[in-house]
Amino acid sequence: MSKAVVLLSGGLDSATMLAIARHQGFEPCAITFRYGQRHVVEIEAARRLVKTMDISEHLEVEFDLRAMGGSALTSSLAVPKGRSAAEMREGIPVTYVPARNTIFLSFALGYAESLKANHIFVGVNALDYAGYPDCRPEYIRAFESMARLATKSGVEGDEPLTLHTPLIQMTKSQIIACGLELNVDYSLTSSCYDPGETGLACGTCDACSLRLEGFRENGINDPVAYHS
Amino acid sequence: MSKAVVLLSGGLDSATMLAIARHQGFEPCAITFRYGQRHVVEIEAARRLVKTMDISEHLEVEFDLRAMGGSALTSSLAVPKGRSAAEMREGIPVTYVPARNTIFLSFALGYAESLKANHIFVGVNALDYAGYPDCRPEYIRAFESMARLATKSGVEGDEPLTLHTPLIQMTKSQIIACGLELNVDYSLTSSCYDPGETGLACGTCDACSLRLEGFRENGINDPVAYHS
Repeated sequence: MSKAVVLLSGGLDSATMLAIARHQGFEPCAITFRYGQRHVVEIEAARRLVKTMDISEHLEVEFDLRAMGGSALTSSLAVPKGRSAAEMREGIPVTYVPARNTIFLSFALGYAESLKANHIFVGVNALDYAGYPDCRPEYIRAFESMARLATKSGVEGDEPLTLHTPLIQMTKSQIIACGLELNVDYSLTSSCYDPGETGLACGTCDACSLRLEGFRENGINDPVAYHS
Repeated sequence: MSKAVVLLSGGLDSATMLAIARHQGFEPCAITFRYGQRHVVEIEAARRLVKTMDISEHLEVEFDLRAMGGSALTSSLAVPKGRSAAEMREGIPVTYVPARNTIFLSFALGYAESLKANHIFVGVNALDYAGYPDCRPEYIRAFESMARLATKSGVEGDEPLTLHTPLIQMTKSQIIACGLELNVDYSLTSSCYDPGETGLACGTCDACSLRLEGFRENGINDPVAYHS
């Protein structure tokens, strides 16, 4: 089996992607980031998923993006609540973290190279997160082109690196339907941007709103506990 | 003055580049990485340079690449000593760190975005380090293309980001000549890959060999202290 590095935040999307990577015949090696996010509880979710899904390799990388500022996810800026789908699609949200996906993918690239893996799975989504520049298909293709030149395998002529984005054009409802088919246990996941001290999902930030709507469209209840 | 993010390791090349960025009219903002390198003494050099050259912004980012393995710079693998220039140019050396420049540039990109800076200076060199895939001009151009799509400014249509690589085609001797003209104090810098517990340069690793040869070609002594 070929190894594939899978970016695993611990949220619904990356949990589904972990199952997709395995379903496609890869041996998934997970990478998770502790970067100063206020929703650090997602890392516990990533560990639960790795354990339950019997993933043999899991690298946790730690750094602090708070010093750079500029995002509600890594500062005391308020996380927007109760926004409609239309409002979420307007402009770049305050939850955008400067260059976050580029930083994540760069570590994934180093990890892939050290594992001699030529596949990276990243759960970006161009529909729900249309406002994030680093979730767009053209960005993903540009990163892949750069990555093919960045590493030993790019020089020594092995199989070129492939960036897989299986969720990029799926709605949240389609992602959940796909995950249920692959027996993903969504009770283990954590999506909320603003879980507070209880660790329970707030139910009203963009991530919670999209998630709740996705379960509703599948006609089932979200198995995680909500604060309200 | 436009701000420019300058990758500052504390070595001879990045010290020169800091002076070049200022000479070109930019306000340099330095970024330095503590990544588990065995030559962590270079960070002290970076701080000395920032202080002496009166740089107003300096971000230090910390993460650990040792968990990924695969390089003599971040493990107990032996650093090669006493190699000729021809030997250094053969293949990819064991001091190559998987995806290191991509990781460094990604953080620089986030820092630039948070500073609203559209310029990044990186001291890659395609002559001395021909064996490093992430020092090649085609890699740099690919990173720049990706970076222009990755960030807010790429979406909102500001001035596109420019990656400056003023040293890319210069020999070590030319870099030193340029730095001397700009009054760089090379006694503050640290280049050695393997300084050991004394913190003194070893004089025989690739970095020391190239540096010593560069000073010799300029007809002057390297002002840093050597172990032997």
